[in-house]
Amino acid sequence: MQVTINISLKEGVLDPEGRAVETSLQSLGFHEARDVRIGKQITLSIEAEDAARAQQRAARMCESLLTNTVIEDYIIEVVEDE
Amino acid sequence: MQVTINISLKEGVLDPEGRAVETSLQSLGFHEARDVRIGKQITLSIEAEDAARAQQRAARMCESLLTNTVIEDYIIEVVEDE
Repeated sequence: MQVTINISLKEGVLDPEGRAVETSLQSLGFHEARDVRIGKQITLSIEAEDAARAQQRAARMCESLLTNTVIEDYIIEVVEDE
Repeated sequence: MQVTINISLKEGVLDPEGRAVETSLQSLGFHEARDVRIGKQITLSIEAEDAARAQQRAARMCESLLTNTVIEDYIIEVVEDE
């Protein structure tokens, strides 16, 4: 199964990288850009019998390695192979 | 408008960070994980009259600052405010 994991900083957690990008965008003339936040998108394939199992394993991976659950949220999307 | 930009390495471009994560997952017992690729997800709000204009401005931002178009692809999603 193809799995996509979107990892973002929790609301309220400062995002200095996002702030730096926002400042750069402004100075390039993109004054309409606001609230820039930068997260990660991890894609991987997981061998599993069904989507529920892949989802469960991906959550385990997030909890044990991929995310820092103190400051980050994650969303898992599973696409079943044809 | 709320805009999400997903940036990923082009196919064929080596992803050492993804490789490192894959090795770590394997050594933690996640032997079903394969083809780990790590990209960025940028969220921002763009003031614009309509979604088409927000999309166009976001593409400009990608081309001039946010992505390295030699090695990266990007996908822009615009969500219209209610």
